[in-house]
Amino acid sequence: MNTPSNSCLPDSESIRTTWQKLSGIVKQTPVLTSETLNSITGSELFFKCENFQKAGAFKFRGASSALMQISEKQAARGVCTHSSGNHAQALALAAKIRGLKAFIVMPENAPAVKVNAVRDYGGQITFCIPTLEARESTLEEVRKATGASFIHPYNNYDIIRGQAGCFFEMLQQMDEEPDYIIAPLGGGGLLSGTILSAKYFTKNTKVIGAEPLMANDAWKSFREKKFIPSDSPQTIADGLKTSLGTKTYPIIMEHVEDIITATEEGIIDAMFLVWERMKILIEPSAAVPLAALMENPERFRNKKTGIIFSGGNTDLRRIPWMEKKYHH
Amino acid sequence: MNTPSNSCLPDSESIRTTWQKLSGIVKQTPVLTSETLNSITGSELFFKCENFQKAGAFKFRGASSALMQISEKQAARGVCTHSSGNHAQALALAAKIRGLKAFIVMPENAPAVKVNAVRDYGGQITFCIPTLEARESTLEEVRKATGASFIHPYNNYDIIRGQAGCFFEMLQQMDEEPDYIIAPLGGGGLLSGTILSAKYFTKNTKVIGAEPLMANDAWKSFREKKFIPSDSPQTIADGLKTSLGTKTYPIIMEHVEDIITATEEGIIDAMFLVWERMKILIEPSAAVPLAALMENPERFRNKKTGIIFSGGNTDLRRIPWMEKKYHH
Repeated sequence: MNTPSNSCLPDSESIRTTWQKLSGIVKQTPVLTSETLNSITGSELFFKCENFQKAGAFKFRGASSALMQISEKQAARGVCTHSSGNHAQALALAAKIRGLKAFIVMPENAPAVKVNAVRDYGGQITFCIPTLEARESTLEEVRKATGASFIHPYNNYDIIRGQAGCFFEMLQQMDEEPDYIIAPLGGGGLLSGTILSAKYFTKNTKVIGAEPLMANDAWKSFREKKFIPSDSPQTIADGLKTSLGTKTYPIIMEHVEDIITATEEGIIDAMFLVWERMKILIEPSAAVPLAALMENPERFRNKKTGIIFSGGNTDLRRIPWMEKKYHH
Repeated sequence: MNTPSNSCLPDSESIRTTWQKLSGIVKQTPVLTSETLNSITGSELFFKCENFQKAGAFKFRGASSALMQISEKQAARGVCTHSSGNHAQALALAAKIRGLKAFIVMPENAPAVKVNAVRDYGGQITFCIPTLEARESTLEEVRKATGASFIHPYNNYDIIRGQAGCFFEMLQQMDEEPDYIIAPLGGGGLLSGTILSAKYFTKNTKVIGAEPLMANDAWKSFREKKFIPSDSPQTIADGLKTSLGTKTYPIIMEHVEDIITATEEGIIDAMFLVWERMKILIEPSAAVPLAALMENPERFRNKKTGIIFSGGNTDLRRIPWMEKKYHH
């Protein structure tokens, strides 16, 4: 195949071949079902378990895809990013597997569990004060000092191409295409990839984005048909606080069927339900699609509904329903 | 096939046919692997995930197997047992699926989460004071009043035949038989079934029982070659407090390769490790084999080692590593 271009929208062929080339690196995660959750929600649910993905989240697909595309010359200088979350871990691990250096800028208040994970994967961490400005300026310094290539967590077609592999893979694991697929929505990388795979590889699957009500910038953008950035949102779904990017915004606005939201209480309840009934660990951001479905059940009743459990990285010493501030 | 007898040891044919007959009722649980845990332990591990079994534990296999064998006349009067744990839930659900009544005697201090689960499955609960004597005398009253058949949690060949299906199934899911299979050991039903399946269906797999050090009655029995009952043990592995029975004791003493133990701290650490790295929920009793392996690593180094994750029923509002008494 030709090298896919990062300057235009991923096409169906490049999504398929990237997924194939990564088959020995990215884990094929299972699609699980739960009679209990079907009966509670009235929908027929299929859960794509990216919480079992390497580095604990779908982000590893995008990071691996992006690293596949960089040249040998770029590779020699390593890659860099700023992130306090799953992209940092994913990029560090993907770089380690390719034998590259990864320079990660993290806010000094990042949870120890995430700092340790990046370090375990061999990532070289530079701390900064916890503002977006400081993150960007520190990254710029690191980039200049090392010559490392910046890998943006979502506003990058190579990343989006990798994330598209998640739903592409899910379709191959299901007997028939679902009526709906719901993906969590922060910067929009996973949702954009899901939209492209639905567009190229299904007949009728409708794609829904799910956002915390407390970080509903994309919901607002979709309704007002103009870009509205997120404004320091406070939500337990810490992976979904970011604004859409210039590459994800148009894909989503053009093709998404709808954007639905979930309350903080609903997110915690959905997360609890999955842990208790399915016996699998998902992080708060991953619970948002199920929570949003449960707060908007009519549309999905008796429909085949895919849900992407986007990740499972959560601090096991800080369980939401055991924290005083979330008691209800 | 002829009806298997409950008065003699299950043979290979009856284990196979019982497993086949239950294939629409009992869930085929996955066998998972983890590169991280392989690298931590130095062994090549295969985890049989009975935490994903219906009613959350392997007990559903035995209960379903036992209910397959009762006559129509017995069925009309229902079944009964005393249990504060997974057998109660498993029997209630298996009875519900067969359309039978289940009468469950539970100690009045049983956790609400377990009482609710039994009730959700339609079990009729009689509470008693929390002593073995009270449980047995209350059960006897229930049995007399209802005519229900008593289904013992482990000292019953029909139960053992059902539990044998777990390792039988696991063998079919693996490319080759493991060098070792480790099962948790309380009353000995799962271990006995595992021993029989290893005996009938493998060439060389060695079976190891894993017990909490704080409830090491079987370990003592094995070493002293005589039956030593458990004596009010205190362990976080609440499913493994019981003594061996007259049917499980001889099977285990004759065929088990060894019995190994795990400390309380080791059990909690292993449970944490599985939650954090594998993103799946197991209960403390299910963590005992991995904990025991990690405390006795030499034998398993570079060996293919099967581990049975026996169940996933744990109170998500009481997480061991967050309880003060277990802080270390």
